[in-house]
Amino acid sequence: MEAYLDNSATTKCSGRAAELMMRLLTEEYGNPSSLHGMGALAEKYIREAKKKIAKTLKAGESELIFTSGGTESNNLAIFGSVWANRRAGNEIITTAIEHPSVLQPFRQLEELGYRVAYLPVDASGTVCLNALSDALSRQTILVSIMHVNNEIGTIEPVEEAAALIREKAPNALFHVDAIQSYGKLRIHPKKSGIDLLSVSGHKIHGPKGVGFLYVRDKAKVKPILLGGGQQGGMRSGTENVPAIAGLGEAAAQAYENLEAKTEAMYALRDYFIREILQIPGVTVNGASAEQSAPHIVSVSVEGVRSEVLLHSLEEKGVYVSAGSACSSNKPSVSKTLTAIGLKKERIEGTVRFSFCTCTTKEEVEYALAQLAEIIPFRRKFTRK
Amino acid sequence: MEAYLDNSATTKCSGRAAELMMRLLTEEYGNPSSLHGMGALAEKYIREAKKKIAKTLKAGESELIFTSGGTESNNLAIFGSVWANRRAGNEIITTAIEHPSVLQPFRQLEELGYRVAYLPVDASGTVCLNALSDALSRQTILVSIMHVNNEIGTIEPVEEAAALIREKAPNALFHVDAIQSYGKLRIHPKKSGIDLLSVSGHKIHGPKGVGFLYVRDKAKVKPILLGGGQQGGMRSGTENVPAIAGLGEAAAQAYENLEAKTEAMYALRDYFIREILQIPGVTVNGASAEQSAPHIVSVSVEGVRSEVLLHSLEEKGVYVSAGSACSSNKPSVSKTLTAIGLKKERIEGTVRFSFCTCTTKEEVEYALAQLAEIIPFRRKFTRK
Repeated sequence: MEAYLDNSATTKCSGRAAELMMRLLTEEYGNPSSLHGMGALAEKYIREAKKKIAKTLKAGESELIFTSGGTESNNLAIFGSVWANRRAGNEIITTAIEHPSVLQPFRQLEELGYRVAYLPVDASGTVCLNALSDALSRQTILVSIMHVNNEIGTIEPVEEAAALIREKAPNALFHVDAIQSYGKLRIHPKKSGIDLLSVSGHKIHGPKGVGFLYVRDKAKVKPILLGGGQQGGMRSGTENVPAIAGLGEAAAQAYENLEAKTEAMYALRDYFIREILQIPGVTVNGASAEQSAPHIVSVSVEGVRSEVLLHSLEEKGVYVSAGSACSSNKPSVSKTLTAIGLKKERIEGTVRFSFCTCTTKEEVEYALAQLAEIIPFRRKFTRK
Repeated sequence: MEAYLDNSATTKCSGRAAELMMRLLTEEYGNPSSLHGMGALAEKYIREAKKKIAKTLKAGESELIFTSGGTESNNLAIFGSVWANRRAGNEIITTAIEHPSVLQPFRQLEELGYRVAYLPVDASGTVCLNALSDALSRQTILVSIMHVNNEIGTIEPVEEAAALIREKAPNALFHVDAIQSYGKLRIHPKKSGIDLLSVSGHKIHGPKGVGFLYVRDKAKVKPILLGGGQQGGMRSGTENVPAIAGLGEAAAQAYENLEAKTEAMYALRDYFIREILQIPGVTVNGASAEQSAPHIVSVSVEGVRSEVLLHSLEEKGVYVSAGSACSSNKPSVSKTLTAIGLKKERIEGTVRFSFCTCTTKEEVEYALAQLAEIIPFRRKFTRK
């Protein structure tokens, strides 16, 4: 048996999305910039994808920019809004637990002279709103807070943050990295006071190499890739029509019966947590209950290193992640786990289990059974 | 009957490439950054694609960076090399006939204070090497010249340009936009003195949304998208494994029996040119014989506007381009056609026919037959 429990790293592309892509790759393959019918047909697929996605967000179709994925969406949101609003101020704010595709652009802006506040989080991984309130000023031009943390699943209070930002930093744009939440939680950026929202296709059973950035109507953002002026000049380059159509399909599927699916995932997650905590020396990190996303469980195992656990599980066909695995596989200590106050030894024994709506109870039971065997076995062979 | 003669806008994805993609989307869908076997398998597909592409270029596998397509490759080459080498000088050089994804980054750099020389071309669209020689200096940090012009097919003297650059501007990196030439002509960047070379997948029967930048070993380039540090930090973001594998497959296919295919395309192109010139008031733009690429023919038709001709042909199932159609479909006068000295009226009557290795003589004959009917008919109804 196999259990792929690494869905926060990437998901299997849905059959419906993949079939649509196949058709657009080999049959209806026009360039949307072409003035003839094959171009018009390609453009129609883009419009349809926009319509499907806009509906899930209660957003306007003109508020969506397709990108090559989550990293580009985050880079566009950050660099694009800072370049467009540099005259309004030089202060920018983010949190200590963002994904590298948010953190690295902030680091670069810091090197360029922008004043950056990195907000702390509490032991559950929840960003400190008092710190946000203190950091905000009329010089603030950008705040970026993720919706769901990719390593521990904590849901951040983005609506409360938005209200604070509106009150204390009227010039700031508010960006939310929703890469781990979109398709799992309802999110309506306009209603929630979010100006910019990043999404990635391959985290929601859509294709890799595509994502989008929601940009609120009238929010000022400059493009970061220049050229032929596609997408209203906001993102040049021939639109990746097959992947865009696949993403639209995946987005629509993700939000079909969302509440029922979320409830089932929460039940499965809670079952997994209850059972895994039966194993001595095992702890679960992050927020609990509905303060955490339904699909991510961060588990620390005393006395077993995460790579050892990962490979032992792999031998049994159970695929999980050590740390986040959204970033490349070079060794570095998790910033999120450090920020929530975990000690080095506990961080080194942490693995992430991430589910999707297709994950079955059988798979979870299978993974639990392997863990119950592997953990005591591996501990026995660990040098003290 | 139908004849898709807009292959320089985009091509049909090859069946082999599309099938491989389908498998990697729905079965072997791991994230290459994952430390388990599904991640390793994904990484293997990337390595294989690199191997196939490196072979076509006689380049090292470590010299390839995968991007989201031609526009990103060109932006990375230009911004990346300028940011990395800004201390070496502030002069940059390109030509008057580049694609917007080269031209617009140069415009932005000009606004930021860089001194830009836009080299003129002669009536055939060939860049003036004397002008290049005059523009080069020890302050030059980047020269960007396209290999094949996307609107008229002229092959630029990139090897001669490289020799001049080495001699007169030892600090400069030489970038070649090979988006319209790769897969049709042999190009060995290292041997030819090219430091950076851009390629797009969907122009060579690969997928949209993917491309690569060749970066010569030791050439200094900074990344433009920041995040998880994938691809040695040069291009963050989860690798688009299905599209990368598809691109590798398409690249290998493009260079199978290249010489025979090129010869056949030249024969088809020459037949098309001979026949179309039989129609009164028709001229062909750009360089002739082997100074021009085998797959692009720019045709000016006296007394018929290009959109009218395009839509009349479309009604008969013949798909062509007015201007370049690589850029979005907003009306603007072609810079290439202006640069080669065409008058406004002639530019307004110019369409581009672009072939691929699958284009048949029957398709070309069919297109010619339609043109022979449409042109005199449309002229009759054109107000003088």
